[in-house]
Amino acid sequence: MNAFLKGRLVGVGTGPGDPELLTLKAARILAEADVVAYFAKRGNNSNARAIVEAQFRPEMTELPLLYPVTTEIARDHDDYRSQITAFYEESAEKVAEHLEAGRMVAVLSEGDPLFYGSYMHLHVRLAHRFPTEVIPGVTAMSGCWSQTGIPIVQGDDVLTVLPGTMSEFELSRRLADTDAAVIMKVGRNLPKIRRALEATAKLSRAVYVERGTMAGSVSMKLADKKDDKAPYFAIVLVAGWSGRPGAVGAQA
Amino acid sequence: MNAFLKGRLVGVGTGPGDPELLTLKAARILAEADVVAYFAKRGNNSNARAIVEAQFRPEMTELPLLYPVTTEIARDHDDYRSQITAFYEESAEKVAEHLEAGRMVAVLSEGDPLFYGSYMHLHVRLAHRFPTEVIPGVTAMSGCWSQTGIPIVQGDDVLTVLPGTMSEFELSRRLADTDAAVIMKVGRNLPKIRRALEATAKLSRAVYVERGTMAGSVSMKLADKKDDKAPYFAIVLVAGWSGRPGAVGAQA
Ligand SMILES: C[S@@+](CC[C@H](N)C(=O)[O-])C[C@H]1O[C@@H](n2cnc3c(N)ncnc32)[C@H](O)[C@@H]1O
Ligand SMILES: C[S@@+](CC[C@H](N)C(=O)[O-])C[C@H]1O[C@@H](n2cnc3c(N)ncnc32)[C@H](O)[C@@H]1O
Repeated sequence: MNAFLKGRLVGVGTGPGDPELLTLKAARILAEADVVAYFAKRGNNSNARAIVEAQFRPEMTELPLLYPVTTEIARDHDDYRSQITAFYEESAEKVAEHLEAGRMVAVLSEGDPLFYGSYMHLHVRLAHRFPTEVIPGVTAMSGCWSQTGIPIVQGDDVLTVLPGTMSEFELSRRLADTDAAVIMKVGRNLPKIRRALEATAKLSRAVYVERGTMAGSVSMKLADKKDDKAPYFAIVLVAGWSGRPGAVGAQA
Repeated sequence: MNAFLKGRLVGVGTGPGDPELLTLKAARILAEADVVAYFAKRGNNSNARAIVEAQFRPEMTELPLLYPVTTEIARDHDDYRSQITAFYEESAEKVAEHLEAGRMVAVLSEGDPLFYGSYMHLHVRLAHRFPTEVIPGVTAMSGCWSQTGIPIVQGDDVLTVLPGTMSEFELSRRLADTDAAVIMKVGRNLPKIRRALEATAKLSRAVYVERGTMAGSVSMKLADKKDDKAPYFAIVLVAGWSGRPGAVGAQA
């Protein structure tokens, strides 16, 4: 292998859904890349791929990295952990082969790559071996609070980002002790999230956003949402800046 | 006034500094806007303006909104509060005049407009009066952790965003109780931030980034930074994902 031939790994943030929320830099990288890789569930389309599909060139190689079917095994089981670790190792090696051959590989990541993104599993395995660059993207939370026009934090506000997968106790404890909050990974966790918001008297301020900035996006006050069904691409926002003009009990 | 003549207010996120981190949508809005407004300190250039200057068209009207000189008055003094509130009211009215005349006004905001951005002071005063849209941007924190290649949060990690203006006790208390942290508004608060990180045994994990994604950006482990001088455009990052491959004490 010739060192000068070494390829380049680029983690590319695609933004939250609207293809126009791609950065100029991400668009340029996609115009240059030899290979475009992305994680996807077998039988599902990759959302990140769908966002940037318009930028694909016929001569570009697509490298889908398909998750193993592990629905039968509990997430905290050792077998799940070892299967998923093996999958990330294999995926990294597939990408490394292209890099060794001197190719530029763009790995797509919905939103921002280093913010709860699957790209990170490749990054930590490859960034010390190959020239690597990460192109930040607009996060899902920015897309969601912009679409709904919610001023999320101002001045001395604290923002806490919470995965909906946490225990109800931890969610409640942290919601009680922050100015603003974003709850990610809503899906089947919605009933628990709702209870935690109720327990901390924040349900009336919570806004639910489904598929933010994508076609068919839905948003409403969480208190007005009749059912507890939520897809994977859903988020809950609690705004800070309680002293803003127009806020309940605020001075002008 | 004719209702059909009503203009449109657009809050435009410019991203953290690199002009290529503008979104395609922000670039399109700047190609369409009649007026481009931005907040700036008297005698200083607006950073948001500098980021998108290449997109300016000769026929576009520039509307700089210049902060009153309030350096003599303490920030928590009533006189400061009433002066700054009056300034935001006047600025909103200047923008409203263009909107009433049917013009499209783009208000620039560094990073993301609704995330600690000054645009919010116009948004809360005008969004109920005029058609309004907010174009999210790449935040400063995303720009900074991408530039330094730091996987900030994964899985069940909690991220806490803290303004460096908080008290040392509050900073320490919250740093002690989070997986990952971002500290904004570093500047003259750096000595206090350093003490809070030391008190919570997180100084060795902290990374300092100055002018992230801009020309002349500097980054280093905060523990390696010799002085306590920091500009306004500086951030401190503490990564979560302690179980990642390669992290101290992690399994593969
Ligand atoms: C694995 S995380 C990826 C986050 C992404 N890297 C980012 O920067 O926002 C997936 C979670 O992000 C949120 N999400 C992603 N896209 C979204 C969208 N368009 N609308 C609402 N939530 C979204 C959901 O909470 C989802 O469960
Ligand atoms: C008023 S806040 C604006 C935040 C912005 N709206 C965003 O979305 O990130 C200003 C603070 O953001 C951080 N900041 C903004 N740009 C930065 C950059 N290029 N590098 C490092 N920090 C930056 C600094 O901590 C600064 O004090």
